Amino acid sequence: MVRIAICAPGKRLKRDRADMVEALVAGRDDVSLHFHEQCFAEDGHFAGDDGVRLRALVDCANDLAFDAVWFAMGGYGSNRIAAQAIAQMNAAARAKSYLGYSDTGFLLGALYRNGIGRVAHGPLAGDIRREGGERAVERALDWLKGHVSGLEPGLDERPAVAFNLTTLAMLVGTDLAPDLGGHVVLIEEVAEHLYAVDRMLFHVTQHLKGIAGLRLGRISDVPENDRPFGTDEVAIVEDWCARSGIPYLGRADIGHDAANKIVPFGLEARGPRA
Amino acid sequence: MVRIAICAPGKRLKRDRADMVEALVAGRDDVSLHFHEQCFAEDGHFAGDDGVRLRALVDCANDLAFDAVWFAMGGYGSNRIAAQAIAQMNAAARAKSYLGYSDTGFLLGALYRNGIGRVAHGPLAGDIRREGGERAVERALDWLKGHVSGLEPGLDERPAVAFNLTTLAMLVGTDLAPDLGGHVVLIEEVAEHLYAVDRMLFHVTQHLKGIAGLRLGRISDVPENDRPFGTDEVAIVEDWCARSGIPYLGRADIGHDAANKIVPFGLEARGPRA
Repeated sequence: MVRIAICAPGKRLKRDRADMVEALVAGRDDVSLHFHEQCFAEDGHFAGDDGVRLRALVDCANDLAFDAVWFAMGGYGSNRIAAQAIAQMNAAARAKSYLGYSDTGFLLGALYRNGIGRVAHGPLAGDIRREGGERAVERALDWLKGHVSGLEPGLDERPAVAFNLTTLAMLVGTDLAPDLGGHVVLIEEVAEHLYAVDRMLFHVTQHLKGIAGLRLGRISDVPENDRPFGTDEVAIVEDWCARSGIPYLGRADIGHDAANKIVPFGLEARGPRA
Repeated sequence: MVRIAICAPGKRLKRDRADMVEALVAGRDDVSLHFHEQCFAEDGHFAGDDGVRLRALVDCANDLAFDAVWFAMGGYGSNRIAAQAIAQMNAAARAKSYLGYSDTGFLLGALYRNGIGRVAHGPLAGDIRREGGERAVERALDWLKGHVSGLEPGLDERPAVAFNLTTLAMLVGTDLAPDLGGHVVLIEEVAEHLYAVDRMLFHVTQHLKGIAGLRLGRISDVPENDRPFGTDEVAIVEDWCARSGIPYLGRADIGHDAANKIVPFGLEARGPRA
């Protein structure tokens, strides 16, 4: 039985999505879920103000009654509480698994930088509402239970991390950013113009000299622009990799979708949980 | 007579805008304008491919027949050619004035970092099409002639720079970025959600520790979101300044509009041209 606490460091979770996830695991003895009430709070853009979100995250992380913290939603806002959360985390927090993606990449990065827990990029609880969302949720639960069947298939012997590109672009060079030297870095993006993807790859490749290479996940829902960019996302990544001396290592099976595979941060998080 | 070369390091200029600017100065003996043919080129997103835009920029900068290089348009793309352009610039380029904003901030930053020319953030030639665009163009020409009547009114004895916030967020920490220690940094933005503004201010304030302070220009055309952010742009900047220890120094008279005032980079560019 893996005991999973769920909180929302950025955007709120709709209650019907929580209900769908709870229905999926009802009566099972392999997982127990605790949706923190903060998941459903609302304060402007956020699932509660910074204080509310911070307390919920720290409550979940520091509670011995849970084995894992699973993020409910992305959105925006985890960067606003990440440094304070890290500073308050205790020994129980260090023994947990953490899973999410999109905006929660700020937290994944900060946890990994500080050597706290087993950290992975993968489905959020809120992904249940996607087409194929049940498979995404089962994949997430599987990794939280310590299994490896949902891992991104191209992971090799080198440590890896994965990020939403916008999140990574805003993370690099900050106090939350881990040292990614020697790592394979997987990126994905949604709903950004290709010129913005190009601009972020300029920024990110400048900051990530020394990584083992870049792998490109799905760049989905690109908005129509008033003129075509002229190349596609593969050419964009190949171009910036060539300019910066970073090896381009091909496509990756991650994205803002239900097929989003699990990318544990570093090598230790690929094994079973302690 | 100040002799001004105009090129487009990112987006193309429509010919009718060039015609409007030329009509404004026709018969005058205080300025002469040369629109490089590259301004009107088109290649996907850009005013010609990287090679075409690079050659035009270097041609304009290195030509003894011109006193200044004025950027035609922003858009996106100057970061793709900035490093190569800087590397090719000669003594004539070092004696020139350079003026633009928005995406051309990548070039302004790189020129300032490398001590090349008098650099300022201010109207583009393409701003002629805005309501009040003739005044914007006259303000630009005035600074290019060596006058100071169009300077941003809050500049003080400290060196300053100004940037579009997105451009600055993608510039910080890269090989193009100048050391802004001790500088007052003015920022403006257009057509970005407030959550994205907040996210960029997280990133930028993390990178700009040691600056003298931040001043906030106009944040215009904010798109409607599915939920309100909860605070406004002043509260956002005050918040990140407080978190990072950067003094917030109030509003600034810059923006993506015809009222956009001139912000010379550093102190020397505020005086008359050599």
